[in-house]
Amino acid sequence: MAKGLPKRSENYSEWYNEIVKRAGLAENSAVRGCMVIKPYGFAIWEKMQRALDDMFKATGHENAYFPLFVPKSFLEKEEEHAEGFAKECAVVTHYRLKSNPDGKGLVVDPNAKLEEELIVRPTSETVIWNTYKGWIQSWRDLPILVNQWCNVVRWEMRTRLFLRTAEFLWQEGHTAHATQEEAEAETHQMLGVYAEFAEGWMAMPVVQGIKTPSERFAGAVETYCIEALMQDGKALQAGTSHFLGQNFARSFDVQFVNKENQLEYAWATSWGVSTRLMGALVMAHSDDSGLVLPPCLAPIQVVIVPIYKSPEDLAAISAKIAPVIGELKAKGVSVKYDDSDNQRSGWKFAEYELRGVPVRLGVGMRDLENGAVEVARRDTLTNESRNVNFESPEEFVVGIKVLLDEIQENLYDRALKFREENTFLVNTWDEFKEQIEKGGFLMAHWDGTDETEAAIKAETKATIRCIPLLSAEMAGKCVYSGKDSPKRVLFARAY
Amino acid sequence: MAKGLPKRSENYSEWYNEIVKRAGLAENSAVRGCMVIKPYGFAIWEKMQRALDDMFKATGHENAYFPLFVPKSFLEKEEEHAEGFAKECAVVTHYRLKSNPDGKGLVVDPNAKLEEELIVRPTSETVIWNTYKGWIQSWRDLPILVNQWCNVVRWEMRTRLFLRTAEFLWQEGHTAHATQEEAEAETHQMLGVYAEFAEGWMAMPVVQGIKTPSERFAGAVETYCIEALMQDGKALQAGTSHFLGQNFARSFDVQFVNKENQLEYAWATSWGVSTRLMGALVMAHSDDSGLVLPPCLAPIQVVIVPIYKSPEDLAAISAKIAPVIGELKAKGVSVKYDDSDNQRSGWKFAEYELRGVPVRLGVGMRDLENGAVEVARRDTLTNESRNVNFESPEEFVVGIKVLLDEIQENLYDRALKFREENTFLVNTWDEFKEQIEKGGFLMAHWDGTDETEAAIKAETKATIRCIPLLSAEMAGKCVYSGKDSPKRVLFARAY
Repeated sequence: MAKGLPKRSENYSEWYNEIVKRAGLAENSAVRGCMVIKPYGFAIWEKMQRALDDMFKATGHENAYFPLFVPKSFLEKEEEHAEGFAKECAVVTHYRLKSNPDGKGLVVDPNAKLEEELIVRPTSETVIWNTYKGWIQSWRDLPILVNQWCNVVRWEMRTRLFLRTAEFLWQEGHTAHATQEEAEAETHQMLGVYAEFAEGWMAMPVVQGIKTPSERFAGAVETYCIEALMQDGKALQAGTSHFLGQNFARSFDVQFVNKENQLEYAWATSWGVSTRLMGALVMAHSDDSGLVLPPCLAPIQVVIVPIYKSPEDLAAISAKIAPVIGELKAKGVSVKYDDSDNQRSGWKFAEYELRGVPVRLGVGMRDLENGAVEVARRDTLTNESRNVNFESPEEFVVGIKVLLDEIQENLYDRALKFREENTFLVNTWDEFKEQIEKGGFLMAHWDGTDETEAAIKAETKATIRCIPLLSAEMAGKCVYSGKDSPKRVLFARAY
Repeated sequence: MAKGLPKRSENYSEWYNEIVKRAGLAENSAVRGCMVIKPYGFAIWEKMQRALDDMFKATGHENAYFPLFVPKSFLEKEEEHAEGFAKECAVVTHYRLKSNPDGKGLVVDPNAKLEEELIVRPTSETVIWNTYKGWIQSWRDLPILVNQWCNVVRWEMRTRLFLRTAEFLWQEGHTAHATQEEAEAETHQMLGVYAEFAEGWMAMPVVQGIKTPSERFAGAVETYCIEALMQDGKALQAGTSHFLGQNFARSFDVQFVNKENQLEYAWATSWGVSTRLMGALVMAHSDDSGLVLPPCLAPIQVVIVPIYKSPEDLAAISAKIAPVIGELKAKGVSVKYDDSDNQRSGWKFAEYELRGVPVRLGVGMRDLENGAVEVARRDTLTNESRNVNFESPEEFVVGIKVLLDEIQENLYDRALKFREENTFLVNTWDEFKEQIEKGGFLMAHWDGTDETEAAIKAETKATIRCIPLLSAEMAGKCVYSGKDSPKRVLFARAY
């Protein structure tokens, strides 16, 4: 166990912060609420980006780039949208500093006041739909399937690395369609892409569902989401896909001539995931020894640590292990051979454990003689000696690749089992109040009103995470009001 | 020739703007000075990013991400740096809007004024060196080799798509070293990487050189650059690599214990290229028919256009050409088969010419009978019939790959020839004044003073683009002042 790392059971929040910092993922910057994503953290984010980007392109999307700034008047055009974002935004009011006439330093130049204030984009619907107006005349111009990778700013007062930061990185897809059906299909398709990514790459099971009106994206007709359960029993929204109807097309007057030769407003979707996923990844799998990474997203999948006493030993090990490294790389495994001599192997073992490297190979002099290496897996913290033909390591490498697949699968299975064990059918208000204190996903009946939802939140801090798409239509009585309910919804406390 | 595209000889500036817009690369946004990079333009930028990123990683760099905002006090810490960037920056002064108490819309909430103004980063030296302070204690922590891909904002009053925009995308490398020698070597290495990218990928020959003090990056000890010649005889700075000495380490107090166990300030470099390269790419190769793309950066390298009169013909062509498409893809060629039926083949030909697709294959019914296709190359606007075995097209595809290489090489050779024909040894002030009106690179002697440099600029609008690294040390007399000069420098009017 890494020295001084808090235990999950003792201080989950501190455990999370320490892992993020000590594994080299991110740190707070001098700018309030903004984080620095460090190289190791960014390497994981790059892997996420690559995987998602490939999936977006495979479903016909292209990338583009739109301005960082949103004119204030754009935000005003869609009322709900403005309501949702105006209260937490960075406002640019001037375009120049000048030397302080009264002394040292720089001051804002009052002569360089903008005629109209610019908002640093909290999301880009308004700027993008203002642009689409020029792109869309006829049904032949549709669909437009565009995605953007960028930074956005939402002025959060209470921030946490990755989970809630004033600036974060994300992708935002913005599509325009000729029909409602097509836009709805797109919304569902992208929700599916997110679920596939979360489960297949992050090894993190998610519940797909619909948000209640109170939790909808500001300006959306319907918001879909994926929700994951963290190890402390809290939910984390990992991605959202919005059906925007014709709201933004109306606000920005984007009409097209449809196949029936009539003017019609375009139909829209938007969908996004952010660096928040990094927080989810940390919390889904890590343990008291540090970060645990699924092999699909690990910047280093296999680390090889030589165990030696003399430079001669190191040279002998390095020579013997070279073909293994070569074969691992040839088979697409990202491998690091750590022959640095400024730390002992024990320190290295702990360090790579802390950093969540899925597989560690330890090689000492005796291993060379025995034709074996020590193979340690990060997910179970177990190790075993495996035979290896150092001259021709193909079979050994096949075994390592199988092991990486096993680890990926095991992490998913473990997280799924955890979720299943922590998902509760709750039928009475007493049960609800008792269980919510212990955490987990609570499947309970709800009468469908904003009032009940708000009252439950006020009394327990639990929110409706979503109305699961796969929840059976089994009627019942609302856990709070006792009124009729068509099906259970998913409650939890959330990040 | 594309309908209505201005000719270079008649209106170069308008020709450039029209190509950028009509080839679907970018357009102006509603936000003054900010551009929208459209999907086709962004696809080229993505190819540039991938190639550069691979080169950065191959030279040991890692990516990271730092905050968008720079506190005003950070900018004040390095005086020259502040001087260089304070006059053209976007200033965030508030963090909230509120409903207008006097009527409709939103207003800045005066209660949400920031204690300290934040600048939208024009470049990130200050934020990054403030962060490095926490990362660097000992020589063992060095070097730090970090790069960031991001957006930056410099409030330009006169903007042009890609060439000069208020917001642009770029990468900025920021490295920290234990010794001056190492930092200088890094500066040179990255200049070399940029030159290799410009010449190898963009097919654009560049002159590597050193900036004069007046053209130096604000805060640098020495600025190196690559300069390219555009078809209108103007220079374009395509990338810069700065040796920053200990300036930023001093400003942000970044000291480390060196091998001699003494405290020392760290040595720094920074280097960047931006979406400006997109403008350079357009201007380096394109012609009066539209964009011309080097195959290495073309999102579509080969487009196949079927020429048919009936749906049966199209079906026959599609069936016959399928193995060719398959083999092209298998060999890593990005290929588009345009069987859309809403435009005639003649329109498609013109469209792909405008978009700069390097190779176009035309296939009609007679070609099927003859076992041939029409192969058109974009760089020379020539075409020829080539034999193809439709059932087993391996040989044909090898030929296409060779052709793509030829086109890449031809574009470079053509641009190099153009530059050679437009580089002039100028020895008198009269010659200088006459030649600068005609454009081109002027190699002339300069006495090394700021005054002469400024006077030449004032009289001719020509600047010293750089002191070329490869210029011979041949003494002479300054073309303007007649004073001694150790070697010729490169003058030009510039973008």
